Amino acid sequence: MKLSKKIDACELSPIRKFYPFAEAARKRGITIHSLNIGQPDIQTPEVYFDAIAGYRESVLAYAPSPGIPSLIEAVRGYYARLGVDFDSGDILITTGGSEALLMAMLCILDEGSEVIVPEPFYPNYHTFIRAAGGRICPVHTRPEDGYRYATREQIEPLINENTRALLVTNPGNPTGTVLTEEELRLLADIAKEHDLYFICDEVYREFIYDGGHLTTAARFEDMAEQLILIDSVSKRFSACGARIGALLCRNKALIDAATKIAQARLSVATLDQIGAVALYGVEPSYFDATRQEYQHRRDVCYRKLREIPGVVTTEPKGAFYTMAKLPVDNAEDFQMFLLQEFEDHGETVMFAPGSGFYATEGAGVSEIRIAYVRCAEELERALDLLRLAIERYNKR
Amino acid sequence: MKLSKKIDACELSPIRKFYPFAEAARKRGITIHSLNIGQPDIQTPEVYFDAIAGYRESVLAYAPSPGIPSLIEAVRGYYARLGVDFDSGDILITTGGSEALLMAMLCILDEGSEVIVPEPFYPNYHTFIRAAGGRICPVHTRPEDGYRYATREQIEPLINENTRALLVTNPGNPTGTVLTEEELRLLADIAKEHDLYFICDEVYREFIYDGGHLTTAARFEDMAEQLILIDSVSKRFSACGARIGALLCRNKALIDAATKIAQARLSVATLDQIGAVALYGVEPSYFDATRQEYQHRRDVCYRKLREIPGVVTTEPKGAFYTMAKLPVDNAEDFQMFLLQEFEDHGETVMFAPGSGFYATEGAGVSEIRIAYVRCAEELERALDLLRLAIERYNKR
Repeated sequence: MKLSKKIDACELSPIRKFYPFAEAARKRGITIHSLNIGQPDIQTPEVYFDAIAGYRESVLAYAPSPGIPSLIEAVRGYYARLGVDFDSGDILITTGGSEALLMAMLCILDEGSEVIVPEPFYPNYHTFIRAAGGRICPVHTRPEDGYRYATREQIEPLINENTRALLVTNPGNPTGTVLTEEELRLLADIAKEHDLYFICDEVYREFIYDGGHLTTAARFEDMAEQLILIDSVSKRFSACGARIGALLCRNKALIDAATKIAQARLSVATLDQIGAVALYGVEPSYFDATRQEYQHRRDVCYRKLREIPGVVTTEPKGAFYTMAKLPVDNAEDFQMFLLQEFEDHGETVMFAPGSGFYATEGAGVSEIRIAYVRCAEELERALDLLRLAIERYNKR
Repeated sequence: MKLSKKIDACELSPIRKFYPFAEAARKRGITIHSLNIGQPDIQTPEVYFDAIAGYRESVLAYAPSPGIPSLIEAVRGYYARLGVDFDSGDILITTGGSEALLMAMLCILDEGSEVIVPEPFYPNYHTFIRAAGGRICPVHTRPEDGYRYATREQIEPLINENTRALLVTNPGNPTGTVLTEEELRLLADIAKEHDLYFICDEVYREFIYDGGHLTTAARFEDMAEQLILIDSVSKRFSACGARIGALLCRNKALIDAATKIAQARLSVATLDQIGAVALYGVEPSYFDATRQEYQHRRDVCYRKLREIPGVVTTEPKGAFYTMAKLPVDNAEDFQMFLLQEFEDHGETVMFAPGSGFYATEGAGVSEIRIAYVRCAEELERALDLLRLAIERYNKR
């Protein structure tokens, strides 16, 4: 039986493929410090559970396709507090940021269309873009340059007649790179000049360190036609399992197009939307506490990485990830070594090997992504294990 | 800004497009008996809400991409009780049957691929198939023939080198037609002989009347390669707002392909899965009571329709829909008349005009779909209004 060419071009998650080897290690009694996936340990605000527990209707009905009005209003209000005006008709509630991404790609990509994406990038972009028949045209960046990409020289040569969009994650996953306002403006200008959609995935918006500030692309009022904003409650409120996201766009034709898909899939889960409304009511101090905790972890992570001889890394300014180039020949082999051969006092560590974050063949083979989603104490130990493992791996 | 050709080929829901006119009628004080959408009024089992209210974890984490193990096991157990064996690896939990359909289409359709679907069909198939780059090749059926389609003569001439799948809803939405075991076997044979996927959407499986019995395509053990089964808790447990469905398939390559999308979208909402596990624990008597209620409504609906002069309809044997050909020139115009001009004691009625259920241009213009999801008393009144409105419409 034939499968579609587009699904053949997709791959299983490069982050999840070490899972069976981790399971085998656990069965041998090994404790694994898992810094490979972006599942935060920060508590989900209890109001989420309270709101849902308090909801009793005799019939759990379909919600309206664009989302329940109170959640659309909550998202609109959240942006208003950031100084950005959206109309309620500009907002589609989606099943996670993931559905917003897939919807956007289905709306703008034909077979052979290209999306310019700085690499390393969130690997699932690959699947959403491929599944819509398109392909990623990567802006190659390097650890030695702090993974920066926002220059005209790097981006314009990649634009051709198949290019439909420029997609950035800001703050960046997996790099932690945060665009300056000038960089963001430059990217917006490039998108505008070349008639490209500018897709900004800002799901880590609240996680900016060192007193820094994120300029959201939604502030650029001249980008109404081009901007597609991807949003989610998953990281903002540590509510990954809620699967509530949003697609925001002031371009009515694009919203109408996405609404075709939204209507076909009928609605987003009703109770999770009720819970999400409550999440948008948490005090702003919630973000301050979370940000402080992540900044502390970021500091530990960066300090410990720099202590390892031969590591190339840049201090991440946002999100809760960092990339690092290790003094190893191949990070995938090294990860297998960590799961199958290495242990110290019954412990090992797990990262996401870097090559899965690149579209360019052979890029990122010595790099890893670290998600600093564990407490500082565990991070200290995990990075000591990393150092020790690198020594042993290179002495084999 | 350009949209994709595939999204341009999609349409807004033909069922939902009369919504603004209905709103306007309500503002004029008109009571509308809404038989246009398949939102049952049957109570959702309370165990759904209880299970969710009882779930408290400090972090609402991502669920595993294929679904939480207890829900996969519950679905497997439900099929085992039907006498059908699935391995847990054959089951992907999805965000409603809708996501299962979109996943299936993305996995099997390339640009220009065709899916054979008997018309009238569930209109959202159009969007899922178009969004994946394919198109529907309709098996045309007629009200005068009770909308039956399962003959070699009707289907085989439609198969060509672009055909990838045969998709049926059984029991049928919008027709209420139920395939006999012989008909289902014939369709399975045709799919097998021509190397086509056989996609069976059986989300209305429990709603079979007159003591009848549904043969699920999953019973055909020789169809492991071809069969893709679409399932959902929405109608089975009157839990439309839960958005919990499943894709079941014994073809490992297809499951692996769908898993690529499942991993990219990370997971299905955690709490709704917890609730769905509880739903699968309800007593089988739950289905008996619901079935009895729907059968009573079906009886009322069919009796009242036959009392209207000039109506062509067939007694539906399953699901909770029926199609009827009315003695009107155009059912869309008639629907607008119902919302804008007609009223009787301040009441009117809303159906889904038939043409949106057909792919063939001009087909179904005098037909309507009725969802008999209201109590018998309301159905009686709604169908009296229909009769009265037809008289007035044709006398204008």
